[in-house]
Amino acid sequence: MLPAPRFTAFNPPRRILMGPGPSDVYPEVLAAQARPTVGHLDPLFVGMMDELKSLIQYAFQTKNEMTMAVSAPGSAGMETCFVNLVEPGEKVIVCRNGVFGERMRQNVERMGAIAVLVDNEWGTPVDPAAVEAALKANPDAKFLAFVHAETSTGALSDAKTLCALAKQHGCLSIVDAVTSLGGVELRVDEWGIDAIYSGSQKCLSCVPGLSPVSFSPAAVEKLKNRKTPVQSWFLDQSLVMAYWTSAGGKRSYHHTAPVNALYALHESLRMLAAEGLENAWQRHHDMHLVLRVGLEKLGLNFVVAEASRLPQLNAVYIPAGVDDAAVRTRLLKDYNLEIGAGLGALAGKAWRIGLMGFGARRENVALCLKALEEVLN
Amino acid sequence: MLPAPRFTAFNPPRRILMGPGPSDVYPEVLAAQARPTVGHLDPLFVGMMDELKSLIQYAFQTKNEMTMAVSAPGSAGMETCFVNLVEPGEKVIVCRNGVFGERMRQNVERMGAIAVLVDNEWGTPVDPAAVEAALKANPDAKFLAFVHAETSTGALSDAKTLCALAKQHGCLSIVDAVTSLGGVELRVDEWGIDAIYSGSQKCLSCVPGLSPVSFSPAAVEKLKNRKTPVQSWFLDQSLVMAYWTSAGGKRSYHHTAPVNALYALHESLRMLAAEGLENAWQRHHDMHLVLRVGLEKLGLNFVVAEASRLPQLNAVYIPAGVDDAAVRTRLLKDYNLEIGAGLGALAGKAWRIGLMGFGARRENVALCLKALEEVLN
Repeated sequence: MLPAPRFTAFNPPRRILMGPGPSDVYPEVLAAQARPTVGHLDPLFVGMMDELKSLIQYAFQTKNEMTMAVSAPGSAGMETCFVNLVEPGEKVIVCRNGVFGERMRQNVERMGAIAVLVDNEWGTPVDPAAVEAALKANPDAKFLAFVHAETSTGALSDAKTLCALAKQHGCLSIVDAVTSLGGVELRVDEWGIDAIYSGSQKCLSCVPGLSPVSFSPAAVEKLKNRKTPVQSWFLDQSLVMAYWTSAGGKRSYHHTAPVNALYALHESLRMLAAEGLENAWQRHHDMHLVLRVGLEKLGLNFVVAEASRLPQLNAVYIPAGVDDAAVRTRLLKDYNLEIGAGLGALAGKAWRIGLMGFGARRENVALCLKALEEVLN
Repeated sequence: MLPAPRFTAFNPPRRILMGPGPSDVYPEVLAAQARPTVGHLDPLFVGMMDELKSLIQYAFQTKNEMTMAVSAPGSAGMETCFVNLVEPGEKVIVCRNGVFGERMRQNVERMGAIAVLVDNEWGTPVDPAAVEAALKANPDAKFLAFVHAETSTGALSDAKTLCALAKQHGCLSIVDAVTSLGGVELRVDEWGIDAIYSGSQKCLSCVPGLSPVSFSPAAVEKLKNRKTPVQSWFLDQSLVMAYWTSAGGKRSYHHTAPVNALYALHESLRMLAAEGLENAWQRHHDMHLVLRVGLEKLGLNFVVAEASRLPQLNAVYIPAGVDDAAVRTRLLKDYNLEIGAGLGALAGKAWRIGLMGFGARRENVALCLKALEEVLN
């Protein structure tokens, strides 16, 4: 026998999470998650899932029947949207203005579909004119895919306009709302979004690991008329829906649901519903304004122009001569404060300061500004 | 705006979970999971992940470097093994003696590979002679895939013999250990298993939602020499490993790890290591013997013959004239006791009584026997 390792229990400190995610989790959510595990077909649990579905519908502002949480993180939610809707050989217009647009391209190409790229500079939003040109140049495109809120740069794109363009050109829209959901205005039905995925952390302030998704009736139609099976058994939504829908009171086993994580998501969405979506959007906006004034006083410059700046993800350039890692390490060690490093093209050049969900509070903004002031001087 | 739904917090009762999973979760694991969320690149968290990796290695009895937990349930662990190792057009011998062998076939075919089926009756183990014949008849096969412990029937297959056969015929072995890990003898290195996946619940008694996996050096070699990219970005282990390995102290972001679920897995594996694997195997065996005597006294007959019966999953035929659903409902409502329904070919014909991990205790066996006695009479 290989010997048994001996470790003590892991007792993490109480960090203040102001990076790009995971965000600070509501204490109520941690408590909900620790409640006793029940069976994934227990009638009481099934009742909870019905509630959870309507809470996800509310957060997305949709009546879409095919709405659920994928049992895996946001990246798997992205893959769920692509592999269920797109078939090999089909053309997808992919907008790329950061890390997550590039990830979309990889998803599309790995599954044997064709990605037509619309590139915009990092830190800028997706340009509707460039998208319109790509739609016109590719009348055989079937999908338009873009990231609503680019977590790698902090840029917000105009999802309403982009989805309207997709519709005009007969394309279904696939939207990444990992960082936007709960933090900025997002209206799935009103804007005509066909497939959308998010993550349980970020502005929902649930634990990381789940991905809320929703498909419009047109997307469901496309799924039903596939000529090829979905390449992934685990992510095949036609199978998963048999578990998420009580057809005649009976749910079919697909995989064992992550029971406790779903308790957590139920609780975090319950808190969002209690606050009200519009109030949550406003709170993110208000806290961003306070943070912004303070950051500018410290001489820090934003990566993204004001008009398309995300309130919940503030990317600022690292001042010349400042040691990126040393600052973040001091914030973590001396203040238990986590801010995010730059990612991709912004690695080593920017910090990402998150104000997400439960993290978007006045005390967090104050702490972050004071700690930065002390460390930078 | 669509109106906000108003629900109360979900307060599940304390069930006793003796079905096929999820199993009873250790109270220590629920407590660990509720600790404060930290960043997935926090140095303290990274240290915890190093410990977690060696705990998974211990549970699997392997020194495999490529050992980690997939951020999704066991079904995704299955898919991880197939999509990383198998390339489209390659031949896989798939043993099918229950629901999960059939799921393997679906994985293989959906990814464009060829499944050669070795069928054995439900409730019987995989027959090594039939596997040997298939290996001889298919010299171009590259993989042998089978389920160690069939959760749908309670049959244990001889993984050691099957993996030796695979090796003799130049095949890599892919083994489902979702229900076996922690409950019965399993030795990845000694038996020469090339790719293995399990689930965080079942005999580990962690919350559901994660899948420990491990790949042998030969499997890693196969992965590295792929001619085609892995179809799934989310499950691509060459990308995920950059997060699970501290190359020069630096981990690369792939996706946001399910931080709190990983706390839980760390704690459950720590408890397994403290008990000792061999002691855990013995405990499952001992509790099974007590349960068996009691079930036989009640006149219930096992689906699986004694020689290949799983201690942790006891499938028994439902006596003639007994209402399956009514019995399970009464057990749940009156005793807070969950036992499992039959699945697939055994739906409506059998019950599945789990004795898994924290659930394999004398008090659970006693309760289950008395409750069944009262409900059946």
